[in-house]
Amino acid sequence: MMVSTARAVVCLSLCLCVSQVSGSHIPARMNKTIQDLLQRYEIPSKERYNGTPVFTREPLDGTTEQTKRTFMGGVLETYEKLLGQMLKAGDDAVKTDLRFLLKLIQDLKKHKYKEQSKLLKGLHDLGNVQMDDRIIQGKALGELPWLYEEASSLTSSIRLERRRRRRQARKLRTHPSA
Amino acid sequence: MMVSTARAVVCLSLCLCVSQVSGSHIPARMNKTIQDLLQRYEIPSKERYNGTPVFTREPLDGTTEQTKRTFMGGVLETYEKLLGQMLKAGDDAVKTDLRFLLKLIQDLKKHKYKEQSKLLKGLHDLGNVQMDDRIIQGKALGELPWLYEEASSLTSSIRLERRRRRRQARKLRTHPSA
Repeated sequence: MMVSTARAVVCLSLCLCVSQVSGSHIPARMNKTIQDLLQRYEIPSKERYNGTPVFTREPLDGTTEQTKRTFMGGVLETYEKLLGQMLKAGDDAVKTDLRFLLKLIQDLKKHKYKEQSKLLKGLHDLGNVQMDDRIIQGKALGELPWLYEEASSLTSSIRLERRRRRRQARKLRTHPSA
Repeated sequence: MMVSTARAVVCLSLCLCVSQVSGSHIPARMNKTIQDLLQRYEIPSKERYNGTPVFTREPLDGTTEQTKRTFMGGVLETYEKLLGQMLKAGDDAVKTDLRFLLKLIQDLKKHKYKEQSKLLKGLHDLGNVQMDDRIIQGKALGELPWLYEEASSLTSSIRLERRRRRRQARKLRTHPSA
């Protein structure tokens, strides 16, 4: 009994230690792994701080939470591919570190970005439309009326938000206990 | 005075006629133009109805309005490119028709899909990350902690919706006249 309780406490402490550092979502081992890797992927500091990050943060400024989530879904997907590419080179120690990071990213995608993954796949497929195929061109013309109608009738996010507020307010005025 | 009023009435009727047909968002001339073009882009009916449309509607099923809008933004963008490609061939009559459709799509994008355009540009840029460049790989590693933290801390859309409702309910209970 004592042993199993002690084991549970150790397990819990370990989990907490690994998963959270001072309220951040970054696992402690992630920071250490990245620091180690950065020594192997050493780049001149004039390159590192040249003002153009790999990932622009522009789509994260002043947009809706949903827009941010879609963009972050794309960022996670890009890291997944990038780490996959990096795994093609490097020694065993580097590969172990890269695999650890890859696992973290895949877990986050799986648990918090499922809907985004589906949307991103749909958008990706759009990029594969064979634009120079005459049959595709004709078919796409035939599909245009339905899609144009759908695109025109979708309410803008601002109007949607206003409508939701009005509906909610009405409901609460009628049934204040709801 | 009479002349300008009459002119205004004619203008208004024309606008209504062009922009709305029996409650649909599809301009009358759009339908006609597409029908004309379909005769030029004649495709065997076994190809047209082979069960695989050019544009899948999967991302439009059972997702949030915001997700639908993002996908539809992508669809409009694809039509823009596709019509651009189609404009490279065809005689003058066909080109006039294609230009008319292109203008409709560009107007819809401009007026109702501005936020989506920005997001799609951001996602598109992600596709251009030079995965095999060692400097990019190193820089991306350095950017990972901030982005991972951001991606982990974004609230899921369902939680966000619940939280919004609670906040709204609290507000209305405290200030019922609000």
